[in-house]
Amino acid sequence: MDIAALREKNPEHWKLATAIRALAMDAVQAANSGHPGMPMGMADVATVLFQNHLKFDASAPKWADRDRFVLSAGHGSMLIYALLYLCGDKQVTLEEIKNFRQMGAKTAGHPENFLLDAVETTTGPLGQGISTAVGMAMAEQSLQARYGQKIQNHRTWVIAGDGCLMEGISQEAIGLAGMQELSNLIVLWDNNDITIDGRVSISDKTDQRARFEASGWTVLACDGHDPVDIDRALTAAKKAKGPVLVDCKTIIGFGSPNKADSYSAHGAPLGDAEIAATKEIYGWPYGPFEIPAEIKAQWEAIGARGATERAAWEERFAKLSAGKQAEFARIMDMGVSPKLAGAIRKFKKEQSEAAPKVATRKASEMVLGAINPAVAETIGGSADLTGSNLTKSKEMTVFNAQNRAGRYVHYGIREHAMAAAMNGMALHGGVRPYGGTFFCFTDYARGAMRLSALMRQPVVYVMTHDSIGLGEDGPTHQPVEHLAICRATPNTLTFRPADVIETAEAWEIAMSQTGTPSVLALSRQNLPTLRTEHKTQNLTQRGAYVIREAEGKRQAILMATGSEVEIALKARDILQAQAIGTRVVSVPCMELFAQQDENYRRKILPAGAVRVAVEAAVRQPWDRWLLGERGRDGKAGFVGMDRFGASAPADELYAKFGITPENVAETVKSLL
Amino acid sequence: MDIAALREKNPEHWKLATAIRALAMDAVQAANSGHPGMPMGMADVATVLFQNHLKFDASAPKWADRDRFVLSAGHGSMLIYALLYLCGDKQVTLEEIKNFRQMGAKTAGHPENFLLDAVETTTGPLGQGISTAVGMAMAEQSLQARYGQKIQNHRTWVIAGDGCLMEGISQEAIGLAGMQELSNLIVLWDNNDITIDGRVSISDKTDQRARFEASGWTVLACDGHDPVDIDRALTAAKKAKGPVLVDCKTIIGFGSPNKADSYSAHGAPLGDAEIAATKEIYGWPYGPFEIPAEIKAQWEAIGARGATERAAWEERFAKLSAGKQAEFARIMDMGVSPKLAGAIRKFKKEQSEAAPKVATRKASEMVLGAINPAVAETIGGSADLTGSNLTKSKEMTVFNAQNRAGRYVHYGIREHAMAAAMNGMALHGGVRPYGGTFFCFTDYARGAMRLSALMRQPVVYVMTHDSIGLGEDGPTHQPVEHLAICRATPNTLTFRPADVIETAEAWEIAMSQTGTPSVLALSRQNLPTLRTEHKTQNLTQRGAYVIREAEGKRQAILMATGSEVEIALKARDILQAQAIGTRVVSVPCMELFAQQDENYRRKILPAGAVRVAVEAAVRQPWDRWLLGERGRDGKAGFVGMDRFGASAPADELYAKFGITPENVAETVKSLL
Repeated sequence: MDIAALREKNPEHWKLATAIRALAMDAVQAANSGHPGMPMGMADVATVLFQNHLKFDASAPKWADRDRFVLSAGHGSMLIYALLYLCGDKQVTLEEIKNFRQMGAKTAGHPENFLLDAVETTTGPLGQGISTAVGMAMAEQSLQARYGQKIQNHRTWVIAGDGCLMEGISQEAIGLAGMQELSNLIVLWDNNDITIDGRVSISDKTDQRARFEASGWTVLACDGHDPVDIDRALTAAKKAKGPVLVDCKTIIGFGSPNKADSYSAHGAPLGDAEIAATKEIYGWPYGPFEIPAEIKAQWEAIGARGATERAAWEERFAKLSAGKQAEFARIMDMGVSPKLAGAIRKFKKEQSEAAPKVATRKASEMVLGAINPAVAETIGGSADLTGSNLTKSKEMTVFNAQNRAGRYVHYGIREHAMAAAMNGMALHGGVRPYGGTFFCFTDYARGAMRLSALMRQPVVYVMTHDSIGLGEDGPTHQPVEHLAICRATPNTLTFRPADVIETAEAWEIAMSQTGTPSVLALSRQNLPTLRTEHKTQNLTQRGAYVIREAEGKRQAILMATGSEVEIALKARDILQAQAIGTRVVSVPCMELFAQQDENYRRKILPAGAVRVAVEAAVRQPWDRWLLGERGRDGKAGFVGMDRFGASAPADELYAKFGITPENVAETVKSLL
Repeated sequence: MDIAALREKNPEHWKLATAIRALAMDAVQAANSGHPGMPMGMADVATVLFQNHLKFDASAPKWADRDRFVLSAGHGSMLIYALLYLCGDKQVTLEEIKNFRQMGAKTAGHPENFLLDAVETTTGPLGQGISTAVGMAMAEQSLQARYGQKIQNHRTWVIAGDGCLMEGISQEAIGLAGMQELSNLIVLWDNNDITIDGRVSISDKTDQRARFEASGWTVLACDGHDPVDIDRALTAAKKAKGPVLVDCKTIIGFGSPNKADSYSAHGAPLGDAEIAATKEIYGWPYGPFEIPAEIKAQWEAIGARGATERAAWEERFAKLSAGKQAEFARIMDMGVSPKLAGAIRKFKKEQSEAAPKVATRKASEMVLGAINPAVAETIGGSADLTGSNLTKSKEMTVFNAQNRAGRYVHYGIREHAMAAAMNGMALHGGVRPYGGTFFCFTDYARGAMRLSALMRQPVVYVMTHDSIGLGEDGPTHQPVEHLAICRATPNTLTFRPADVIETAEAWEIAMSQTGTPSVLALSRQNLPTLRTEHKTQNLTQRGAYVIREAEGKRQAILMATGSEVEIALKARDILQAQAIGTRVVSVPCMELFAQQDENYRRKILPAGAVRVAVEAAVRQPWDRWLLGERGRDGKAGFVGMDRFGASAPADELYAKFGITPENVAETVKSLL
């Protein structure tokens, strides 16, 4: 690569792009950790994107109609930090750049959405960015259908590397985006032919262009170091039909005399000598973190480029009715619908009277029948299990290229991309996503579900078939460790409602979150309504509550969730018949219970009684509540699963694994 | 579809295939649950495969050189059960067919490798079968290089549906197989255009043929209901270069007058009337489960077709030296290398003297340097983090199309396919796979890791960068819930060794398993050698042991794992200096500790002392050990993580989150 020629050919561009490269090298060196090669390789593409194409205003990173920029190759975080600093983003000061990867810095090792307004999504786990971006593009199209092109009309741009494209989740995202014909999605592939282990050819020989084309994408290409060629490709990308891949041929660690085009440029500081040599080649005679004022000014002008467009948008927005404006502001901020509480209250009253015996997945469908008409921002879906997850309420139409007003997504057999797309929708704002699969297949979506929690996005996972109670499909489909998994994950609410009323309460709480995802673990099998006395209060909100009090002296406390609450109640009948006073505590959400003050927790779980928990899952999350938080609360037992399930009718499985009222009662008695 | 014409054109074939279809309809109807549509649709393809192509001998399902047959679309389990029964497999009697999906039946809802010898792999979670098959094909190639074509020369055949192909893991598998140029892998795509939610076109418009071609596969096609055309395609597939996709155009629920070509044939019994109508169309005047003797005999002849070939193989095998024969038999059965124990003992002795201060990931590399030369059946690899996971010992060469004798796999950025491929290798037998990624990215591999446990395969997961101790990469890369996840999973050994000696012991245990996978959680940061006094005994084998006894009266017990054992020991120094007698217990493997008898557990964790556990992860798995198994053991505390990590140097993170000797000592004192 003849850098001298490049410098000469486009000297203004060269300076702008080199400012990024220099900051990336300097910051990684100062941190003594990080990834310089990718920002150095993609600086030219990013410069052209920000200078000529990206719709943004650095002074207003949360402008609702901005283009979204997603750095899927999140390890190249210095690319986005450099861009933000140079453009004049208020949060990314030079001090922050110098503090790259240090304690308390907003310039974390990987970009974190909760640290910087302009970071649209946390990236780092490969393949997540491109998949999350699909959800952003879908949200934009949904809002455009709802508010018109004058209010929502923007693109989502993604920079993805070979790592992103090798991850399986990327195929799910590519398929989903192709199906949805998302013309507002443009992926810039940093095609540098290098992964951590060496050249891409040691692990892959996929023709990526052909692969994207196979799913209906438009594929363009450019020389990723020629600004004119980049500009041509990006211009064409904006006009293309459907989602676009731009194959940007780049060199990792571009310009580094000894490390360019090699994995050695990927994930470690270049070293002072190599940085000096590289700056020499760049014609960049400046010290660490030094950006000449003239170049900074040019970049700040780029950062301010969108101000006029934003002002015009503000004017258009101001023409909406006050109600529309308020609603739009609320939903972009993931604010809670004022209609939610009333819809749930009405539903609970009706159902506590009707007292249906239905599976909680069915109860969930019934709740959605109350929520969806009232809360217009919901977007539901399923990973090809609509009739099993019961996620589509009847007034919903399908969201697709022909019907952007639809609110139901057929995600296909793509659990991971569904979860990531839901993250993208919530991050974009304006829609409130929920989606379903079998609870066991949280295994397929874990990467994105963890990000829902880390990124503080109120996504709702509708996870049906939540135990051996699903019966004949057998152990591959029967969760036993998944409640423990969800409960172990920080900032996640895991609900396992016991009946139609708790299901409604769980939904109310889930739909009221603004910074926490929820998992609803729902039964396949029918369960009676246990809460037949209507209470406006949401009892699930406290996580655990007494659903049946002991008669006589309280000798035992049974705790249970979901389908096992009914079993606990029957066990109580057995015990009470033997004059063993037994309280039953329903625990629809351990995390919420843990958040209650000690007084409440002690009130529900007082010392002095034998405790037995019943849950068709592993014991691990229960020890805390069984054994007492300070280990002095008394004897305890557990009735649940300690191995994988089996294939047979549900009732027989419950008997086989001893999750029966009789066995619960025996367990209590053995401890008395 | 003119079924009368098909019947007439190939009457013998028609009867053979219809026997499968009839059994599938009848068994699903009797079970009142299951998936008839897929077996009905793929019966013709399966018949041609078994009749003319698959190398197998129904009387010897474990014959080492058989072709492997993988039903990736595992919900169509009646296809394989019908084939096995018809071919005369000893385990699948007519009684078993009638007991489909019932308690104790070997004919479980989805095929389970641990129930039937002829089921090569458990399937059901979509996309796993095709990915597992890649590992089987790799294992065959590896063994062929080692033992020659006379001993190992077979194919892996896969039946995969649209669901398998939409799952992200399939892309990883396709890329890996293409890269590895596996000519011994043939995927038969059940292209019926139906998923659970409806036609494929509601969720996908991917050109699957183009997609496979993009990764270097040969793509063929056939009419999946024309035996002559199927035979032509399968014959061509066996001659093609590289892995092959055969696009078999089929009709789900083939022949059912009201349900064929519809999702209604997918996952529910057809109903008695529809079965009668379908059998009428088939020209199959037989009652439920009735197979005419003549047709059964024809099928049994197919089942015996491979007997001659097997006899010839047995003769060839008998010509190997006794040592070679014994070795081959051992490794095909995943037996433990007789050289392992000695190699580990020698290593431990050397290292307890050298007492290096190294990260446990580095210690793991050192152990592999001792194991791999001694144990010839290991196949290592990494999902593109070789230099970070340190999984490649120096004598290893790379396994690829040019070097099948290589024992190191560059899996690419494909954690999920790596895990599934390792399952396939272990299931195939003959190689003992281990593979690495960052511990946090168990999230990406969970689907297959769970199957390692369920299928009882002794795969080893080398999971480095096991906590906030990885530092600057931040919360996306810092596991906090992953130890809880692995420990919650049945039949999984989760190791978190504290130093080079425990790392060697963990490896020894992991490499000695025959029915349980192991996860090694290894540090990025350096750790001192704590066990400087050599013991031949493997202390890790008991899961937990006293690594430092209290001096004076024992007032506190500290429990810790991995990098936190050093912190616990320093906390002990602080406490002992204040005359607080403190025992430190290292807990490298909770599962093994739980397996010890009560005497041992009480000896290590006696009542009467304050207990504090230290682990840079969530508390969930610790309550059991902290609070006592019967809840009466005393006061307890925990020093660890209750939220996601952050990006900063490791030492600062430990200080920020309070995982320090000082805080541990304070915690103990607050409880005294």
